[in-house]
Amino acid sequence: MKVVTTIQALTAEIQARKRDQQSIGLVPTMGYLHEGHLTLAKTARAENDVVVMSIFVNPTQFGPNEDFESYPRDLPQDTELAASAGVDIIFAPSVEEMYPYDGGIRIHAGEQATILCGASRPGHFDGVLQVVSKLFHLVQPTKAYFGQKDAQQVALIATMVRDFNYPLEMRVVPIVREEDGLAKSSRNVYLNEAERLEAPAIYEALQLARDSFLTNGDAENALMKAKAHIAAKTHGKIDYMELLAYPDLTPVTANTEQVLLATAVYIGSTRLIDNCIFNVKEGL
Amino acid sequence: MKVVTTIQALTAEIQARKRDQQSIGLVPTMGYLHEGHLTLAKTARAENDVVVMSIFVNPTQFGPNEDFESYPRDLPQDTELAASAGVDIIFAPSVEEMYPYDGGIRIHAGEQATILCGASRPGHFDGVLQVVSKLFHLVQPTKAYFGQKDAQQVALIATMVRDFNYPLEMRVVPIVREEDGLAKSSRNVYLNEAERLEAPAIYEALQLARDSFLTNGDAENALMKAKAHIAAKTHGKIDYMELLAYPDLTPVTANTEQVLLATAVYIGSTRLIDNCIFNVKEGL
Repeated sequence: MKVVTTIQALTAEIQARKRDQQSIGLVPTMGYLHEGHLTLAKTARAENDVVVMSIFVNPTQFGPNEDFESYPRDLPQDTELAASAGVDIIFAPSVEEMYPYDGGIRIHAGEQATILCGASRPGHFDGVLQVVSKLFHLVQPTKAYFGQKDAQQVALIATMVRDFNYPLEMRVVPIVREEDGLAKSSRNVYLNEAERLEAPAIYEALQLARDSFLTNGDAENALMKAKAHIAAKTHGKIDYMELLAYPDLTPVTANTEQVLLATAVYIGSTRLIDNCIFNVKEGL
Repeated sequence: MKVVTTIQALTAEIQARKRDQQSIGLVPTMGYLHEGHLTLAKTARAENDVVVMSIFVNPTQFGPNEDFESYPRDLPQDTELAASAGVDIIFAPSVEEMYPYDGGIRIHAGEQATILCGASRPGHFDGVLQVVSKLFHLVQPTKAYFGQKDAQQVALIATMVRDFNYPLEMRVVPIVREEDGLAKSSRNVYLNEAERLEAPAIYEALQLARDSFLTNGDAENALMKAKAHIAAKTHGKIDYMELLAYPDLTPVTANTEQVLLATAVYIGSTRLIDNCIFNVKEGL
């Protein structure tokens, strides 16, 4: 495995692989790798000749009062983990290498960035789209891998790929779950024993809403059932629960083909997110 | 020569050429081809295995009161002219083909779009960058060709290519001039005989300013000399004359490497634009 830190070195690698007609899988990360990242890398490994993982804590997606400086970094450990997952090239540039100029051009994520998790992070998704656009151009991947856990991020990147015709396939890797259905998260360790027993109700609620919507097409009713389930089974507080067209994140209409059902719930003081994406026409 | 109107047909062509490791030159146009476009096509022909010309009147770069509907179109004549200039593939999509969705994501051109010609066309350059970004992803050119006449457009696209790491080389093709130095333009026919005799003073003024700036590095003084020349030699009215860092279009500093000197002048009622781009360190 190679670790490259400059655009010049990365470009030389990419051009050599392209010349040999190799397929390239890209796994963009901010490092401090956990099981979720490694699942993405292993999926990319199985589907491509070359796997490139970017490790870059992108300053433009952090707000002025957010934790850019203190965000955890551990390149030596990441290097070891990435190698074990079959990554061929790590691209770990400095901030100066990624942003040597600023000509003032920005990608604006639009309305769908201001709902769900974006409501509390203005500008966050603009920064995400900026760095993802740069990485797509630098790596020129055949396929790019993202985790479904960050559903809004996935929806926005899918929208950008579709509306700006990026020549790549976006692969959304499903959420990894505990045996009882709770979505895996580094935050789950903050739950006490009673909270941990309540937490699977979140995924149960999503499944109820999904089944209800597929049966009768009534989004409001589906959400009501899911919220009632969380109220009955937990002491939690719902931050949001939405059923939206995917990837546009607009209200569901008769023409909607894919749906995102997403929620954030406080169980005690721990905020847990979960979601599912499904085809409207798949039935039950 | 092939004329393709769908993204699917274009993509099949591009993938075949890429598989054969051919270099691709892209000439983006809005059609109704004139000598300037053909110069771009011929330059692309000389430098690439394949030449793709896009012909698309892009609605997103027209303001609500501008002439999108009445903009001239003549695909049969364009096809003939493009073939004579050595174009291999014309990509002439419909508006529906280019914009089947709208997920709300936009490229914002920033401050440098609000000066020079952009001052009177808010949002124009956002639309230009949007369609150029899409064309770059669809055609994946090795080199893309733009005319220097539209200097602000060239500067903004160059900035986007640089700051977002598009994997292509941008080629800026010099302004074609009449024997007396007047920049060729379809608007020159509107000049009466006396105006036509005055018009070369615009390019003379740019040369004076360029030489003055290269001699003493004083932008303000250089512009003053140029404006004085236009005042002395014409009855024209200067819309703007600016000397700015290229491609950022910010004020010139001690670190500036390339400079854009651009002007728009009304000669009678005809608005003529002209410019030159030069390296600060090239001397005289």
